[in-house]
Amino acid sequence: MTQPSNKALVPFVSVDNMMRLIHHVGIEQMLIDLANYVEDDFKRWEKFDKTPRVASHSEVGVIELMPTSDGEAYGFKYVNGHPKNTSEGLQTVTAFGLMADVYTGYPVLLTEMTILTALRTAATSAMVAKYLAPKGADTMAMIGNGAQSEFQSLAMKAICGITSVRLYDTDPAATAKCAANLASTGLDVVICKTPEQAIEGAQILTTCTADKQCATILTDNMVGAGVHINAIGGDCPGKTELAAGILTRSDVFVEFPPQTRIEGEIQQMAEDFPVTELWQVINGTKTGRTSDRQITLFDSVGFAIEDFSALRYIRDRIKDSDFFFELDMLADPDDPRDLFGMVQRAAQ
Amino acid sequence: MTQPSNKALVPFVSVDNMMRLIHHVGIEQMLIDLANYVEDDFKRWEKFDKTPRVASHSEVGVIELMPTSDGEAYGFKYVNGHPKNTSEGLQTVTAFGLMADVYTGYPVLLTEMTILTALRTAATSAMVAKYLAPKGADTMAMIGNGAQSEFQSLAMKAICGITSVRLYDTDPAATAKCAANLASTGLDVVICKTPEQAIEGAQILTTCTADKQCATILTDNMVGAGVHINAIGGDCPGKTELAAGILTRSDVFVEFPPQTRIEGEIQQMAEDFPVTELWQVINGTKTGRTSDRQITLFDSVGFAIEDFSALRYIRDRIKDSDFFFELDMLADPDDPRDLFGMVQRAAQ
Repeated sequence: MTQPSNKALVPFVSVDNMMRLIHHVGIEQMLIDLANYVEDDFKRWEKFDKTPRVASHSEVGVIELMPTSDGEAYGFKYVNGHPKNTSEGLQTVTAFGLMADVYTGYPVLLTEMTILTALRTAATSAMVAKYLAPKGADTMAMIGNGAQSEFQSLAMKAICGITSVRLYDTDPAATAKCAANLASTGLDVVICKTPEQAIEGAQILTTCTADKQCATILTDNMVGAGVHINAIGGDCPGKTELAAGILTRSDVFVEFPPQTRIEGEIQQMAEDFPVTELWQVINGTKTGRTSDRQITLFDSVGFAIEDFSALRYIRDRIKDSDFFFELDMLADPDDPRDLFGMVQRAAQ
Repeated sequence: MTQPSNKALVPFVSVDNMMRLIHHVGIEQMLIDLANYVEDDFKRWEKFDKTPRVASHSEVGVIELMPTSDGEAYGFKYVNGHPKNTSEGLQTVTAFGLMADVYTGYPVLLTEMTILTALRTAATSAMVAKYLAPKGADTMAMIGNGAQSEFQSLAMKAICGITSVRLYDTDPAATAKCAANLASTGLDVVICKTPEQAIEGAQILTTCTADKQCATILTDNMVGAGVHINAIGGDCPGKTELAAGILTRSDVFVEFPPQTRIEGEIQQMAEDFPVTELWQVINGTKTGRTSDRQITLFDSVGFAIEDFSALRYIRDRIKDSDFFFELDMLADPDDPRDLFGMVQRAAQ
């Protein structure tokens, strides 16, 4: 049997190894680390190839490839979105990702990204809230208590120092699950019966609901001055969570305007609705929060560079560890022109 | 330790298992099978999403994603092209591919595709030659004796019945390697010192050279009436192999015109240079070869549907076999909303 050469092996992080890594690092520390990697890549935003995601739509869902490159490394994520999956006992969203060396074109990391995407989304939200939330914010309303809710809560605790979360979901079972999962995290958890109750006293309002339809989770009169809204759930055409009136009263911050205008909350607004690009706030060329009374809004849709940051973190973090194994995924004959000979010799 | 559920596992075909599968099926039979799968998909061409490939260019190479879908299955290939790699002992081209179920968005196959791409490229060439080459063709000139040359020769033997190959390369070592690899295949192998000598008496002229530059491997006066030219090497902007005069005298057949006009031999010609789409020949709506004197030219650049066919074949062929193992690549909690709980319980 032909043995593969070292060059042909691609480090692979399985779901099991990703969970082992999270517990080894500690989930809050990993959220902090990921937020730092995302923040670093937002600071050097202009270095990246920014391609819109490549989507293949069907009647029941979408499959997307999200590639980007900083000129040295190349990353892409495969991710599906199938809202009907939940009712069939499957995940709405599953994902995996790959990083490659731009100089050789050889992959250097293959990894599960369902869990990693949940972590990077929460880390990005909290990193952004660090810039935009009012000073001293200690309470978050968490509206929508699905798969992302615990990650959001812990990231806001680890990165922004919140001490209390107020949970609301149309399905009380989801809230109970979220509350149980957060019980031993040190967060003060309050179960709320209405969205109005959830936002009482909260300086950060996070919305993360899943229905693919234009919904109004927050109405205009619910949102007072001086809060930061972290809107996660409006992330595809036809899917929004906020009343248009809130957007009009807010300063809206986005990842990549061409994508957010199609997928985000601002799809409700005119094409020239003013937004600020977050990378410019983070590198100091634009201002974030300017007053205590201001409503800031992060219209989050998720961008390829955040996945790139997460892949880069995993690539760096697993070096010299046992949190991966090597996959024989690339044929690499001794003589590059002799692929056939390699195949032929494998019979011997 | 949490055990992954069955749904979370993705069948993976390693390089080693791909080589085992090839020897199990037999390389000529596998080329025949792949040609049948490609032919079937060309016949139902209109059912496919046809996106141009998504390329990320650098100074030294390119990394591409090639997705397509027939509405039931979704496939993509990751492939790099780095001509300078050979001089560093690496493959110019490496590839892997993935197939997913459109209905759930869940991946159903991950596989090496460096070897599989060599097989599908050769199978496609021979399937096309079956429609276009002159009747009774028994001799092929193989100009360029690199990694693709043996696969091309064997596919033309298995699918079109050629009995003799005439090899030429600017590097005699490449020709010696190709001749040695083909020695026990039953083909009559003739080593030639010039391209002119290689094409003597050949009815099929295959060009497959690797330089990323406009080269003229075949000049106009070398190509007489009644041959089929299988032009593999011209497959990216700036890379061609044939004199423009040959194109003018030929009937040119292509995979997907928008891609071929940028990447193929016809990038040398006007934007409205007439071409015939192969899928229409194969489903019987357009004619292929119409006379013994005609020069037919397959301007091959490689298209995503051919990779899809290859992925579909591997998916079908490995069922109930031991030519794969299962990768724990997709997180799949029992309760889809309880991703965090799954991570949390993994610590126990």
